[in-house]
Amino acid sequence: MMIYAVSPDWRTHNCCEVNSENDGIDEVLIGGWVQQIRDKGRLIFLTIRDPKGICQVTLHEDRVPKDVWQKSKTLSLESVVSIKGAIKADPRSKLGAELIPSMIKIHSQAALKFPIDLTKKKTQMEIDTIFRYRELSIRDPEISATMELKSIIASAAREFFRKKGFFEIFTPFILTASTEGGAEMFSLDYFGHPAVLAQSCQFYKQAALACHEKVFGIIPSWRAEKSHTPKHINEFHQIENEIAFATDQEIMQVQEDLIVYILEKAAKTASSQLERLHRKLSIPSKPFKHLTFVEAKKKVRDLGVESDPDEDFGSPEETALSEAFSDPFFITDFPTHLRGMYYASNPQDPNITRSLDLMAPEGFGELSSGGQRVSDFKTLKKRIKQQDFDLDEFEWYLRMFKYGMPPHAGFGLGFERLVRWIANLPHVREASMFPRTPEIYQP
Amino acid sequence: MMIYAVSPDWRTHNCCEVNSENDGIDEVLIGGWVQQIRDKGRLIFLTIRDPKGICQVTLHEDRVPKDVWQKSKTLSLESVVSIKGAIKADPRSKLGAELIPSMIKIHSQAALKFPIDLTKKKTQMEIDTIFRYRELSIRDPEISATMELKSIIASAAREFFRKKGFFEIFTPFILTASTEGGAEMFSLDYFGHPAVLAQSCQFYKQAALACHEKVFGIIPSWRAEKSHTPKHINEFHQIENEIAFATDQEIMQVQEDLIVYILEKAAKTASSQLERLHRKLSIPSKPFKHLTFVEAKKKVRDLGVESDPDEDFGSPEETALSEAFSDPFFITDFPTHLRGMYYASNPQDPNITRSLDLMAPEGFGELSSGGQRVSDFKTLKKRIKQQDFDLDEFEWYLRMFKYGMPPHAGFGLGFERLVRWIANLPHVREASMFPRTPEIYQP
Repeated sequence: MMIYAVSPDWRTHNCCEVNSENDGIDEVLIGGWVQQIRDKGRLIFLTIRDPKGICQVTLHEDRVPKDVWQKSKTLSLESVVSIKGAIKADPRSKLGAELIPSMIKIHSQAALKFPIDLTKKKTQMEIDTIFRYRELSIRDPEISATMELKSIIASAAREFFRKKGFFEIFTPFILTASTEGGAEMFSLDYFGHPAVLAQSCQFYKQAALACHEKVFGIIPSWRAEKSHTPKHINEFHQIENEIAFATDQEIMQVQEDLIVYILEKAAKTASSQLERLHRKLSIPSKPFKHLTFVEAKKKVRDLGVESDPDEDFGSPEETALSEAFSDPFFITDFPTHLRGMYYASNPQDPNITRSLDLMAPEGFGELSSGGQRVSDFKTLKKRIKQQDFDLDEFEWYLRMFKYGMPPHAGFGLGFERLVRWIANLPHVREASMFPRTPEIYQP
Repeated sequence: MMIYAVSPDWRTHNCCEVNSENDGIDEVLIGGWVQQIRDKGRLIFLTIRDPKGICQVTLHEDRVPKDVWQKSKTLSLESVVSIKGAIKADPRSKLGAELIPSMIKIHSQAALKFPIDLTKKKTQMEIDTIFRYRELSIRDPEISATMELKSIIASAAREFFRKKGFFEIFTPFILTASTEGGAEMFSLDYFGHPAVLAQSCQFYKQAALACHEKVFGIIPSWRAEKSHTPKHINEFHQIENEIAFATDQEIMQVQEDLIVYILEKAAKTASSQLERLHRKLSIPSKPFKHLTFVEAKKKVRDLGVESDPDEDFGSPEETALSEAFSDPFFITDFPTHLRGMYYASNPQDPNITRSLDLMAPEGFGELSSGGQRVSDFKTLKKRIKQQDFDLDEFEWYLRMFKYGMPPHAGFGLGFERLVRWIANLPHVREASMFPRTPEIYQP
């Protein structure tokens, strides 16, 4: 079997195809990294790894061509090779089959002393090494399982939105006016204009409703906070969503449908990745449980965690609350003073917003924030002034409300947080191939 | 018919469903913008627009409820309304049917003097206005057709790669070391470290091959150049691709397959958008034509355009060459001194790289650059030194070659350039909902 877009001179098969089912195929060409070398003198066993799995190559000095034998004697760990050979079932081999080579090409002879021990279990102590040599540590099959799962989750999310009639949007990242203020931002100079990197595409996804009635995107954001919780990285993506003529009620339903769709898709198409991560998924039933902000605060106190009823959930509160659930749940009715100025108020009580957070269970905490938006021009101006922002900073944003804005609602769901929960990772940085934290800025 | 995720209190139908086929349905609820008001005294015609189309609402003073009549008298252009009513076929109406309203709700009363004339044809003179009020001008159905087409192209590209076994990658944007140098970059301070915004994900997509054997992504990039050609914006996306154990030959095939896949998908699923853009697509046949750099330079001179054989194609050369073709084509064999240090050399001639550009026809010019990469550690070190870069700046990049790198190839294809070509737009900035150019930095 040829592999699409791969040179047949360098690789026709994946390592995992060297199995007992393919016993007797007398010429396959594999390509990969040398993961293990067991040199028994006149017998050498190589373990070759490619991103789909491993295989065993067995060399008897007197049964392989002389140049093959000589080359294999020079091999170092993590060198990259193409090996041609015949597949032979062998019940003694753990993998059920081995490759008997007739040709070996060394593409890249690796230097000695590979800085990462790919065979050892990663411990907390090694975390620094894993990220310092991230371009090497991602060769670890457990790390690559996370990255494959991330790709599958992205694809499932987009598929969900497309099937439901949403259009994907691409919003700007360099902003010269405020988006919403609050969290710290990275500054830069844009051809002489002071600018920042978008901490959210909030205003732009609202604007996009003039173009499409339902929008989504998996969109990068940046926050310049020196947070050290397992929930924060400085460069991340959000699964963004905004819908014209929708309310907070529809937004909850969209999130339930999206989460169930992604989990079902992952359970179905990412079983090998989930297995490598020792993760079993359970599909939550809809509708998800709801707690109001006040109920959630009470529950936190009932769980024995200290909690100020006027403050947002701190990290210990959020973790305790999330640990008390085995399925995702919503917290609704956040107080106005804890939410962005673009959230609509409850018509019965102006101190409460029609907003909600989606929470992951098992201690993973907040996944998304969203709700009903302010769509009235005068109300929005009032809210901006109440939060002590400068109206001039919101010139174009206000203008779109001045000239006709539909009622609308939406949410932003932390993509790496979702991956962290589904893959069961200790820290959200593990959900990023090359994360950015206050301490990690390379590779 | 209910619309997914839209509140049934505000909208059950799209405007385009008010048509003669639905004659006799006695209660639908539409929601949208007031595009036109024709007030004939005791008879008012409203044109209501939503992102899927328009419909006509007809009000006779003596046949609609009093409050409906009064509200409709107060309406301003671009106000947002929900209107409930019955569908009545009417052969006199251009749209074949009209809505006879029983309820009207004004969500948002628009201010007078909307700054954009959505009905007038856009001329060169108005370009400034279009981008100054971009949050308003995107209400234009022709602009929204471009944005819908962009979403459809993105989706087709990702579908192509997923079907072919590629994994999507998410690369970092804030970089503290050089990616390749050359083009100017936006600088920022990353927690005390001098950093730049990625002008390309080149090094990271190469690194990702340790994790996945075939990768893709639609990835943002930034260039701080003050270019004023119709091909340049400062914030853009590239359809990125990299494949382990592939050569420049496979990369060309992938691009041919990708382009044909996208065009076929667009022709099939974006016919209404293409119609709004007055664009007919033709599907090119594979393989695409090839010219070497030397042949292309000769052809440019044959076309009567001045051309230095040692320099890259300037804008006039590129346009003339591209205009001479009606289908996409490749330029191959670029000289080493014109390409990045990561391109592999031709084994027969070290002055030529195994690299290629994909060119759009009809004067649209370069779409992508790609080719075979250097995968040998020593060669790469030599190439970095030859191009006068500092080896220390490439520490982690070099390290991954030191510890075993497969041969590989890949390309980056300008996403907005592709949209520009397919949608037949005068400038690449029109392919961005909120573009960034040296002059445009808001909204």
